[in-house]
Amino acid sequence: MNTIILKFGGTSVADNIKLNVVAKKIIDLKKEANNIVVVVSAQGKRTNQLIKEAQELSAIPQEREMDMLLATGEQVTAAKLSILLNRKGHQAIALTGWQAGIVTNTIHTSAKIEKINTKRIEEELKKEKIVVVAGFQGVNENADITTLGRGGSDTTAVALQVALKADKCYIFSDVDGIYSADPNMITVAKRLDEISFNEMQEVADAGAKVLHNRCIQIGKKFNCDIIAKSTFSEEGGTKICQQIETAEVKSIVKNEKLEVIQMEKKENIQETQTYDIYQNLLQNNIIVETFQKEEKQIQFRIKKEQQNKVQELLESKYPDYEIKQKELVKLSIVGYGIIQDARCIKSSSRNTKKTQNRNNRY
Amino acid sequence: MNTIILKFGGTSVADNIKLNVVAKKIIDLKKEANNIVVVVSAQGKRTNQLIKEAQELSAIPQEREMDMLLATGEQVTAAKLSILLNRKGHQAIALTGWQAGIVTNTIHTSAKIEKINTKRIEEELKKEKIVVVAGFQGVNENADITTLGRGGSDTTAVALQVALKADKCYIFSDVDGIYSADPNMITVAKRLDEISFNEMQEVADAGAKVLHNRCIQIGKKFNCDIIAKSTFSEEGGTKICQQIETAEVKSIVKNEKLEVIQMEKKENIQETQTYDIYQNLLQNNIIVETFQKEEKQIQFRIKKEQQNKVQELLESKYPDYEIKQKELVKLSIVGYGIIQDARCIKSSSRNTKKTQNRNNRY
Repeated sequence: MNTIILKFGGTSVADNIKLNVVAKKIIDLKKEANNIVVVVSAQGKRTNQLIKEAQELSAIPQEREMDMLLATGEQVTAAKLSILLNRKGHQAIALTGWQAGIVTNTIHTSAKIEKINTKRIEEELKKEKIVVVAGFQGVNENADITTLGRGGSDTTAVALQVALKADKCYIFSDVDGIYSADPNMITVAKRLDEISFNEMQEVADAGAKVLHNRCIQIGKKFNCDIIAKSTFSEEGGTKICQQIETAEVKSIVKNEKLEVIQMEKKENIQETQTYDIYQNLLQNNIIVETFQKEEKQIQFRIKKEQQNKVQELLESKYPDYEIKQKELVKLSIVGYGIIQDARCIKSSSRNTKKTQNRNNRY
Repeated sequence: MNTIILKFGGTSVADNIKLNVVAKKIIDLKKEANNIVVVVSAQGKRTNQLIKEAQELSAIPQEREMDMLLATGEQVTAAKLSILLNRKGHQAIALTGWQAGIVTNTIHTSAKIEKINTKRIEEELKKEKIVVVAGFQGVNENADITTLGRGGSDTTAVALQVALKADKCYIFSDVDGIYSADPNMITVAKRLDEISFNEMQEVADAGAKVLHNRCIQIGKKFNCDIIAKSTFSEEGGTKICQQIETAEVKSIVKNEKLEVIQMEKKENIQETQTYDIYQNLLQNNIIVETFQKEEKQIQFRIKKEQQNKVQELLESKYPDYEIKQKELVKLSIVGYGIIQDARCIKSSSRNTKKTQNRNNRY
């Protein structure tokens, strides 16, 4: 009987009816532990809505201001859930990221948690309050609000698990665990009882919207089991842990959130310029995959959400290049040791608008 | 050429089209001063919407959590306006109340500003940035978010005027100044070019939705002129200042946001109990007017927005009283020295649901 962390995703807190389901779940779980820390996402599609409104004002909004804007989503959920828990007779208190002591680096929109000053949370737990933390956000050394990237509330939860030495961390969502493929697309997909951190990392890297990448890294590093469960069902669940890996296909992931950038020049491209472009992308916190150079062409993959930023950066810095963007769909097969079996799968990519790329990362 | 404060109300920032009008106004006013500090309210009806959603979860939500919830409204506006100003080529930065150094007392939902640490704002102004501050909010000594009460962004603006020793403070809204009566109800109402702090205070006390009460108190105390203007027109405007008062009717105000509370008991009410009730109301930050005691009855006025809180407090603490609520409409006539002329107006109140009360405060 000590501390558990419960994280509820956007669909689980989408409206007041669902917040009531979540509150009941929290109150039920109070039997499991003395101390409850809840981490919440923004309600439903609120984050997307705010991004849309900001992009109507500017194609490339300042990342610092975007963090300030988006962080309100989780703050609203935390305050509402705390109000509801108090109404149900259970003392609760809502904390923003900065109030919860979550300190990050200064990289806006994809900040990393550097440390958590748990003093305030511990004080509130001592007062026997349920602590509701706004996920996805922190504060940096400049006293600016930062966010951890899409899905970052998972990372908030696991980082709190480590900082508070909590016994368990439940990640609640609208699905009842991790599946071998997206059950909305592949009906025979099966739910996994367990998956290793390494495999889970591959699934997340491949682009599946399951758990935040950084959350799995932290879980692995500190050997903290994570339990993925459904908010709306007692059944099922998948444990992500330091499990012994067996050679089998664990998951097939389709990722449509990628974009291929092609930069073409009339003359040959110098090595120094290639280096300069790569450095510039990194310095602007652009996540680059499969960076390749040919004589008069540079090609690399980026995340679709960064496409406007990349386009603007390249156009302003490298006006003598022609820049093309292509959508990319990536299919990944994930499982320990399957590289031996999978060598026959040839990587294919065509220059159609939607390119299929069978990709095996192991 | 140094510092001006510009405050924009909820109607002025209600959508992206209006935000563009506001941004243009700010950029135009950059010709007037080196340093621009903008204070913004929540967009349109956002505050009301959040209150409604919270009240669906709890009839009497925790005031601390309400502050955390409502403060997001202004934070969203500040971030959006900063994004837009940057897009238009003018460096800007958005700050929440706590980032802007606005420290208040601990009274949630109607906090008073105790001091402003202007360091961050001054640093940003030195970098030639337009500073956009989320109005209506601050932080208390417990590192909790507080709000200043409805209309509190006016107070943020004037408090910043004092703290930054700014030259001017414009309060922009959808009306072009202070009127002798609500122009939506009385078509012959005329716009005043000037009004004294004392008169303005009476108008606000009487319940007119013009300027936040506390904002006028600060303006008066530090002798800072306030200019009320329209966001959508260059014409008009009213200066609120230390003006010499002339004996005339300046304003007629109708206030429907009041409630009369009647507490009745079967036996006579003791003086000690009357004192206890009054103390309890004050300790719970309930604003009480015209508290009167008769043998078996206590009667007083409260603000309509506090009616649920009062009802719950009285029912739980004083179960042996019958508690009745009645709506009240108050008509106030404001103007320096008019008490002499107005003695003939007899105060009348009837026990109908809507009671008219001609009230002369001078």
